Amino acid sequence: MDDSTIKADFTIGFLGGGQLARMSAVEAFHLGMRVAVFSTGKDDPVNYMTPHSIVGSFDDVDAMIEFAKKCDVITLENEFIDSEILQRLKDESGTPMFPSPDTFKLIENKFIEKETFDDAGIPVAPYALLETLEDAKDFGDEHGWPFILKSSKGGYDGYGNETAHNEEDLKSAWTQLGGDNGHELIAEKMIPFTKELAVQVARNEHGIEVYHCNETVQEDHICTRVITPAPVDEEIRLKAENLAIEAVLAIDGRGVFAFEFFLLEDGELLLNESAPRPHNSGHYSIEGCITSQFENHVRAVTNLPLGSAALRSPVVVMENLLGTHKRPSKAEHIFEAMKTKDAHLHLYGKADSKPGRKMGHLTLLGENLVDSLFTLKQISSGIEI
Amino acid sequence: MDDSTIKADFTIGFLGGGQLARMSAVEAFHLGMRVAVFSTGKDDPVNYMTPHSIVGSFDDVDAMIEFAKKCDVITLENEFIDSEILQRLKDESGTPMFPSPDTFKLIENKFIEKETFDDAGIPVAPYALLETLEDAKDFGDEHGWPFILKSSKGGYDGYGNETAHNEEDLKSAWTQLGGDNGHELIAEKMIPFTKELAVQVARNEHGIEVYHCNETVQEDHICTRVITPAPVDEEIRLKAENLAIEAVLAIDGRGVFAFEFFLLEDGELLLNESAPRPHNSGHYSIEGCITSQFENHVRAVTNLPLGSAALRSPVVVMENLLGTHKRPSKAEHIFEAMKTKDAHLHLYGKADSKPGRKMGHLTLLGENLVDSLFTLKQISSGIEI
Repeated sequence: MDDSTIKADFTIGFLGGGQLARMSAVEAFHLGMRVAVFSTGKDDPVNYMTPHSIVGSFDDVDAMIEFAKKCDVITLENEFIDSEILQRLKDESGTPMFPSPDTFKLIENKFIEKETFDDAGIPVAPYALLETLEDAKDFGDEHGWPFILKSSKGGYDGYGNETAHNEEDLKSAWTQLGGDNGHELIAEKMIPFTKELAVQVARNEHGIEVYHCNETVQEDHICTRVITPAPVDEEIRLKAENLAIEAVLAIDGRGVFAFEFFLLEDGELLLNESAPRPHNSGHYSIEGCITSQFENHVRAVTNLPLGSAALRSPVVVMENLLGTHKRPSKAEHIFEAMKTKDAHLHLYGKADSKPGRKMGHLTLLGENLVDSLFTLKQISSGIEI
Repeated sequence: MDDSTIKADFTIGFLGGGQLARMSAVEAFHLGMRVAVFSTGKDDPVNYMTPHSIVGSFDDVDAMIEFAKKCDVITLENEFIDSEILQRLKDESGTPMFPSPDTFKLIENKFIEKETFDDAGIPVAPYALLETLEDAKDFGDEHGWPFILKSSKGGYDGYGNETAHNEEDLKSAWTQLGGDNGHELIAEKMIPFTKELAVQVARNEHGIEVYHCNETVQEDHICTRVITPAPVDEEIRLKAENLAIEAVLAIDGRGVFAFEFFLLEDGELLLNESAPRPHNSGHYSIEGCITSQFENHVRAVTNLPLGSAALRSPVVVMENLLGTHKRPSKAEHIFEAMKTKDAHLHLYGKADSKPGRKMGHLTLLGENLVDSLFTLKQISSGIEI
């Protein structure tokens, strides 16, 4: 964005049309922008938010280049497109892209990601790139069993991860993750963490804005609840927030990023994962913060000044609304939530529901944690979707 | 909305695609809905927010019926369509419409509107329906000169109003407003008010939610600034809020409504105007209230429970960003506003700017009125658009 100006026909183009792009698009509208989307499904949520949607494959680089040429800036809602393709897309369209392909290059491969953060002095769990099954066994013998076997590319929400408890386990995990077929795998020490924490950071050339460190509660590797601020010592929260700043600098991140940490019993923090985009751990910020992660994402990638990430209330809790049925989506029994003061329902407009699919979320602003969690549970547990 | 359910393909259809529909549409997206728009201009803001936009004329009832058939509910962002057309549209499409044609019937004509509120015991300025120029002269002689001559239909922001200081004035005003051609005119006593106040109310069968009474500051008949809560005695605010409830009941309003009052020197309030839709006086509520007027509009017309209209901070001030140039729209010198904590910039995505046109607004949440107004002026005065 040049010259402290927003033009009426300024178009922000999203690669990917799911809920992250949807909630970002809403903020782009508030700032007077237009939205375009290149999505992979004909019913993706953002397709219903613009006359300018293209349905295609992330493998069809030419189609993405044509799309990008019609946008003023390109951003992404996932990390599934190879950085080499992103670089080509950026070069051949001439359209700015944030986060940059160079940033993606540093985090798309879990081995390179860990090396990058490790080199920057950010603590990570012990890890190793595996060339053979024998390497994996050696890792277990050195760092202890069980350990985790991961695809270096493409995993999320626990997909692409396997736990190796013993050699037999390891063999089947190796095969299942494609190690026999040359699929690159890494080993990672299993960390006995007490909590998982997350920090969102927005950054562009105007500066950095850091959100409060929060706790993400996972069930079956899927985030179900987020508590802000994290119910841990302030010292730990500040440490996580500072590590998140170091992490975003290490990858020269421009946009909104989320960094997930393991908190160990002794108070140590290990950076576990990074996401180059608005993240489930930051959904609470729509109402919970002065400027949401989605608005700051739009500001960051369009090079506008960032807004304050300060909290609006002492406590903000967020519950993911996961699909409870396999059916054309409908959200039922939502009235109690809608009637509750400072509870905020968000549905993502996905055409179909299935058990476990992220269909929406419910945010509650409150004064103290115990009451807020009690109310949140009460108003969310009856919702079917 | 039946059975406490939101379905993924639920479509809210707007007649009119300007900023009021745009800011409502954003809230519909948050609730997982789809948006459709029947707009009168090919570049209207909402046209860029949905693949489902029809550009047509509000006189083309058949086109509107076809549009309405594809929507689950119809709502309006203005009061320019005759209630008889709305009734036909509703009957022939079979699509629910809120506010209802019956509500529009009671307020589209300024004479009937005044009678309706007068009959409900809500104080209004003395008024009269005029059949002849002689009637108008008699009104001035009875209630005092100058007085106001108004078209009974179609006026807004001061258009359709003329002040008659004397008989000569009156004659030219009469002609200018079409009195000679049978255009229905009313006379209204000029009221020496000290402030103009406004109250937004949301209502549907779940209940009523009333926003804080605020002050609207007008320049050249256009609202330039809104201060919430209105800087008047609490007793006066409560009286205005109660009158607004009586007013919405008098017209059986379903949706969001705004009621504008004159505050007289002796503390008396007169209902001046009503708007059957979200209103400029309520734009501050996007960040300033727990539930914005736009979200409550969407909830109200889709028959969902209403959300709290409570304020998020002691003071909220809002400045309209009116066009400063005639040009393809661009907002310049916005960085200072964007950098200010809890200042929120909204641009409406209008393709073209012209002096005085409502192009966006700027909201600031604050702790006290003096500082908030000072900061608001400082960060808004340099913006060109």
